[in-house]
Amino acid sequence: MAELAARSGVSVASIKFYIREGLLPAGSARSRTQADYDDTHVRRLRLIRVLREIGGLSVARIGEIVAVLDDPAVGLHDLLGTVQYAVSGAAEQSASAEAVELARGLGWHVAADSPALARLGAMLPVVRSLGIGTSVADLRPWAEAAMLVARREVTGVPDGASRDEQVEYVAAGTVVMGRVLAELRLLAQESVSSQLFG
Amino acid sequence: MAELAARSGVSVASIKFYIREGLLPAGSARSRTQADYDDTHVRRLRLIRVLREIGGLSVARIGEIVAVLDDPAVGLHDLLGTVQYAVSGAAEQSASAEAVELARGLGWHVAADSPALARLGAMLPVVRSLGIGTSVADLRPWAEAAMLVARREVTGVPDGASRDEQVEYVAAGTVVMGRVLAELRLLAQESVSSQLFG
Repeated sequence: MAELAARSGVSVASIKFYIREGLLPAGSARSRTQADYDDTHVRRLRLIRVLREIGGLSVARIGEIVAVLDDPAVGLHDLLGTVQYAVSGAAEQSASAEAVELARGLGWHVAADSPALARLGAMLPVVRSLGIGTSVADLRPWAEAAMLVARREVTGVPDGASRDEQVEYVAAGTVVMGRVLAELRLLAQESVSSQLFG
Repeated sequence: MAELAARSGVSVASIKFYIREGLLPAGSARSRTQADYDDTHVRRLRLIRVLREIGGLSVARIGEIVAVLDDPAVGLHDLLGTVQYAVSGAAEQSASAEAVELARGLGWHVAADSPALARLGAMLPVVRSLGIGTSVADLRPWAEAAMLVARREVTGVPDGASRDEQVEYVAAGTVVMGRVLAELRLLAQESVSSQLFG
């Protein structure tokens, strides 16, 4: 276990805690005081770290993700959806009929209980008050931009990798590339404003 | 003042506070106890409300924006930039050389002290660790998406409107449409994942 700690950069105390909480499988016992750990342990510790530090998730929430991850009956789409929903946060209410209609109008396949759809629905009245409008045509530029990055991001999920690595990519990518897109949008606004009004 | 409160939905106490803090010009005195207020007061109260409730800004920060807004020597680009920087938050450090180089490579005109550029620079090492890369070519989909919405957003600044209304549009639009884009991206990811892995 001391070796695993050295390889992963996670303390022995944390490793013991994660094993106790069911986040990390125990090593295969070699003697009464020694156990073997392999690459799957190192990968799982990397994933736990990303979910905690980048995803901002609690140990309990990570336990829920790990249960789905370790269930071979759960397919990749549902697994990645579980991770995306977890790192992007909950919604306070269910999706408005208007939001459901908008997703349908865009031709997108999204679950009616998607928290992102609920949060989007809650914002549509404000979007209308900005004078931007909330029809598919009104929101086309934002929807196109969203689809452009989403296509790149989802096709970027590493293909031959383990499920742990795919989950790690989606958790970190959802958070980090969301922030990157947000900052690039502000910079692009500044650049356009400079050309139009500068 | 009671009439202004009724028209704007802002309490008399808040109106008095905003006048004292220099956020709202005093009405033109009609008698010892009465003053005239006009549409500019109603518009300014609307703006203050948006900056507080949607922009999340303190009264002190709003005072700084109002000072720039009321200075006719400040052009529209600098005014809108002040608002965008205020509602999108500060940066902890200055922009890395790598971030400056990236903006240049994209052909974007952004100030070297832009907080968005600094925050972007701080994220580039994490982007690299995701295996996405940080060259202009690597980040092209996110930059294109950002420019697509930025062009629509900045050209949407109301043309013949007052500076108060233009500032209100930029403050609310920066925050609200940023959130809309973020939620649409999550929904688009779900849709693509459903097609690829569902």
